[in-house]
Amino acid sequence: MLCIPSGAVAIDGDTLAAVGPTTEIQANFRGRREMDLRGHLLMPGLVNAHTHAAMSCFRGLGSDLPLMQWLHEVIFPVEATHINPETVYWGSLLSAVEMLKNGITTFCDGYFYEESVARAAMESGIRAVLGQGIVDFPSPDLPDPGRARERAEAFLAAFPGDTDRLRPSLFCHAPYTCGAGTLQWVKSLCRERNILFQIHLSETAGEVLELTEKKGMRPVFYLDTLGILDDLTLCAHAVWLTPAEMELLALRRVGISHNVESNMKLASGVAQVPQLLTSGVAVGLGTDGCASNNDLDLFSEMDKASKLQKVFAKDPTVFPAWKVLRLATCEGASVLGWERKIGSLEPEKKADFIAIDLNQPHLTPLYNPVSQLVYTVRGSDVRHVWVGGRHVVSDGRVKDVNEAQVMKEVGRIAFRVKKETCLPIHG
Amino acid sequence: MLCIPSGAVAIDGDTLAAVGPTTEIQANFRGRREMDLRGHLLMPGLVNAHTHAAMSCFRGLGSDLPLMQWLHEVIFPVEATHINPETVYWGSLLSAVEMLKNGITTFCDGYFYEESVARAAMESGIRAVLGQGIVDFPSPDLPDPGRARERAEAFLAAFPGDTDRLRPSLFCHAPYTCGAGTLQWVKSLCRERNILFQIHLSETAGEVLELTEKKGMRPVFYLDTLGILDDLTLCAHAVWLTPAEMELLALRRVGISHNVESNMKLASGVAQVPQLLTSGVAVGLGTDGCASNNDLDLFSEMDKASKLQKVFAKDPTVFPAWKVLRLATCEGASVLGWERKIGSLEPEKKADFIAIDLNQPHLTPLYNPVSQLVYTVRGSDVRHVWVGGRHVVSDGRVKDVNEAQVMKEVGRIAFRVKKETCLPIHG
Ligand SMILES: [Zn+2]
Ligand SMILES: [Zn+2]
Repeated sequence: MLCIPSGAVAIDGDTLAAVGPTTEIQANFRGRREMDLRGHLLMPGLVNAHTHAAMSCFRGLGSDLPLMQWLHEVIFPVEATHINPETVYWGSLLSAVEMLKNGITTFCDGYFYEESVARAAMESGIRAVLGQGIVDFPSPDLPDPGRARERAEAFLAAFPGDTDRLRPSLFCHAPYTCGAGTLQWVKSLCRERNILFQIHLSETAGEVLELTEKKGMRPVFYLDTLGILDDLTLCAHAVWLTPAEMELLALRRVGISHNVESNMKLASGVAQVPQLLTSGVAVGLGTDGCASNNDLDLFSEMDKASKLQKVFAKDPTVFPAWKVLRLATCEGASVLGWERKIGSLEPEKKADFIAIDLNQPHLTPLYNPVSQLVYTVRGSDVRHVWVGGRHVVSDGRVKDVNEAQVMKEVGRIAFRVKKETCLPIHG
Repeated sequence: MLCIPSGAVAIDGDTLAAVGPTTEIQANFRGRREMDLRGHLLMPGLVNAHTHAAMSCFRGLGSDLPLMQWLHEVIFPVEATHINPETVYWGSLLSAVEMLKNGITTFCDGYFYEESVARAAMESGIRAVLGQGIVDFPSPDLPDPGRARERAEAFLAAFPGDTDRLRPSLFCHAPYTCGAGTLQWVKSLCRERNILFQIHLSETAGEVLELTEKKGMRPVFYLDTLGILDDLTLCAHAVWLTPAEMELLALRRVGISHNVESNMKLASGVAQVPQLLTSGVAVGLGTDGCASNNDLDLFSEMDKASKLQKVFAKDPTVFPAWKVLRLATCEGASVLGWERKIGSLEPEKKADFIAIDLNQPHLTPLYNPVSQLVYTVRGSDVRHVWVGGRHVVSDGRVKDVNEAQVMKEVGRIAFRVKKETCLPIHG
């Protein structure tokens, strides 16, 4: 990982023209606009490899409940009643704002009404992979699951033209909510269009046990027999894997999104990230949805990802800062199949980068920038964000979104959720 | 835990006169000054039950190294060369600034040159328990450990007069760095003066094994035979305890500081916090020093404390948000022996409280304030802080400290550390 002590970037349109020492950049380039970012650290924009942006509408709903009670008595009923194209749009716009302010320049989403997520992403200026959700049971988005293929094709057909910043994807919720037939046609449609196939995989021990009994083999082998696994398949969670499953994931070049805060809060388990990396599996970092986190801050995910592995392995050398930082940047880009264009600061790549204000008490002194980024920097330290060369966050404000209006609209949605939901109150 | 939807506080001097609904407060009190904090959440200032404030000079130094290499090749040599009354003062002032900005109104410290920490605490406006460090080997502060008693008495004699905001304490580093004789005279001096005795206890499995072999009994029993354990003894860490040790700690009314980020980063282990609470032991929350954390943010400690217990116990109902919040406030006050004056918003208690700006994208919507505080709020969301009725942080700035100067001075210290230390570089 290369650190340039007094560096600069030159941007040409949406692309990085050069990255290097300021003296060198100034000798070779004359900018139409120039910006002095003395005292800031510039780094690649972070890649959130797995989220459900619209779920910010349900931020923290039903915290501290048993998993099945949380899902069946809180999340599923609330989703059934309250998600529609409007709520998904406002929730996603709120999440896009939160992510941009936290230095996330790309997110990978999977939800219902994904057209609304695309609209929010488009307006906010963020980069995104947008996965239309598919399950075998009725949902508000698709009351008749028999018509899922039509729904997926309509989503792809209507997908916005700016494919340079937004990419479509399909998202099969999980091997236990999508049958073999569904998994196969969705993956084959993804192959046909050369787009990312997403799925939740082996998040909880219980789900793995059940699927293994039902299919006579462990989930990764099951997906492999269906022909699902390749380098444009992204599996979220992947907590419960055998060494043989890890080897197969590596062989098939499948990408993983590690979602440490969600796994901790829902008590799903500790993903074997160091082992996955040793096996040669590409791993990105994801926030998962806001209901199980309860925020969208990859700096906090990096900090926890490293520290959880250390305490779990009883070894402070495990998962050092520089490896964690790779997950949130270049490896994240790689699991989305976007590594040629984003994830690092290199000429010819998209100009997706962020500036962190180092001149703050909690970031003083600075011994090692990488350790500081992973263990100390918070999303709130990000002052400026560029996506494809566009200055989308300036001095901490998202330029193209009316933040107050978005908060007000999501506040209204939450008001209805509160009124119509009987939530267990603790404390 | 009581939440007042549209509440107010009335302050009389350094004391809370009343806490209640705004209408009620306005009917009964007329303030010389009034402040409208609409859109903010008011709560008790947080209590950092264990830290070494001066170590911000060494923030993040030697991250990701094996514990013994980190201690013996980085921390101890750097401390031996670089700590003196000046560096301890500037480091502590930087930490006081960071803590206040993060909503910590009281911290409990243990280090060398504790007079310098007291000076920094006094100037910054924060409340503190200040423990002069004692070990049986030579330190820059006391080259001749045979004169430790004199040193301790001199510290106590010179302690600043404002005992209402600053309280003295003595801090025996650990049972493996202080012999039985030292532990006993220090505790008896503490008893004589009615002040808090602090010690690191059972942080790593290795240290417990070694001490147990040497003394023929486990650490808690060893300290008990020396007569060290009572309600004015605070043990930091307490990761490795048997059920019998927990029972004895409860019986003796000993306080514990749980320092989750430090325990995770150094791979010390997972403290059995839910079991401690069930046993009836009082537990506060601490950041430990900046070298092993790498910051001083109790909001991030709360988030991790809860989520680590959940994933470790494989149960999302373990250590719910309201219990965690108690650790960082009223239980923290209790382990410092200060529960009658701080730790909650109640009439007659000191006016130590903070205001959090809720009107931000990442804190929208708000379903449950307690869940939001523990899982979503960051230290950077604190806008205002009052300690003993004094408005010490206003709109995110510490009023009585020149932040730029402190950062500059600590930057200079770090420059010398970097020059004279050969640090292993990773990545
Ligand atoms: Zn998910
Ligand atoms: Zn300590």
